[in-house]
Amino acid sequence: MEELKQKILSEGKICPNNIVKVDSFLNHQVDVSFMRKIGEEFCKRFKDEKINKVLTIESSGIAIACYVAEVCNCRLVFAKKGKSLNQAPDFYESKVYSYTRQTEYPIRVSKEFLNKDDRVLIVDDFLANGAALNGLIDIVNASNATLVGCGVVIEKGFQPGGKTLRDKGIRVESLAIIESVDEINQKIVFRN
Amino acid sequence: MEELKQKILSEGKICPNNIVKVDSFLNHQVDVSFMRKIGEEFCKRFKDEKINKVLTIESSGIAIACYVAEVCNCRLVFAKKGKSLNQAPDFYESKVYSYTRQTEYPIRVSKEFLNKDDRVLIVDDFLANGAALNGLIDIVNASNATLVGCGVVIEKGFQPGGKTLRDKGIRVESLAIIESVDEINQKIVFRN
Repeated sequence: MEELKQKILSEGKICPNNIVKVDSFLNHQVDVSFMRKIGEEFCKRFKDEKINKVLTIESSGIAIACYVAEVCNCRLVFAKKGKSLNQAPDFYESKVYSYTRQTEYPIRVSKEFLNKDDRVLIVDDFLANGAALNGLIDIVNASNATLVGCGVVIEKGFQPGGKTLRDKGIRVESLAIIESVDEINQKIVFRN
Repeated sequence: MEELKQKILSEGKICPNNIVKVDSFLNHQVDVSFMRKIGEEFCKRFKDEKINKVLTIESSGIAIACYVAEVCNCRLVFAKKGKSLNQAPDFYESKVYSYTRQTEYPIRVSKEFLNKDDRVLIVDDFLANGAALNGLIDIVNASNATLVGCGVVIEKGFQPGGKTLRDKGIRVESLAIIESVDEINQKIVFRN
């Protein structure tokens, strides 16, 4: 997605540990009109898949998932992190290790919001090692819903998450795949 | 907002500790077409306020804030909870006690995304004791931005948060104010 690549090049910053910061438009400040374009792009790519549910994980996936769900005319469900007093008693659970927070946490989806009749598209802002997506896939599998694929805004192609998922036969659509980053020169190279 | 009240009555559940669960459309599964109507309602109520930024807190506020920001044609910023490796080094910080998670956590907004020229509308899904809104107000004040007001989807009128904020002169617009809940009979009464 060319407009996304241009936005990453003009607004993104490379931080230590190969972190690509795009918090001016994607995951802290959010450019909602651009999120709509992202939603339209994912819906176009998965248009033949009869998606009826978009699944993401709090928090950075939610803005993206809103527009995917709106354009695809389906419900959005976001997995919740950790424990909460108002969590439903029956839930699917998996575990996710967060690199940016350096901690493992449980993620949960209430059983009433995911079931065997659902055709689910998982979306998220980043794909690096695949921890979050794998946790969400666990939950889709536990619910016996059909996983249509994963839609990722930015994939770090130099980390193994994307390859591992595709090797398992899972369809992964990334709107921009970063091949390499150079922190000293603040240079980002995309995969063609 | 009549449609919201009807949705709360038909889909809401009252749980122990006066928790009103509306996770079928607001904060776990999300009805995005209804979120758009909520966004339109807030923009109508604050239409003369020249809002240029919508501020919320991850996670449940994000879906609502997306549509407020889109309809009002402005940027969305969501405060982040806790510590993260990709947090900008310069940020405004406050502390919030979460009743549903029974823990206190820091919230942060990067200084580059909030400044004295901003006219900020804070939005969130619930207002009970006001902990989250007070934390966000602290951050707006620290940035010297102008706080236009707070837009809340569901206010629990039997808890003190709304009154305390209004007594301070802060404009609070709640789309539904719950006067009382009765867990045994699963009865919800709204304020007129």
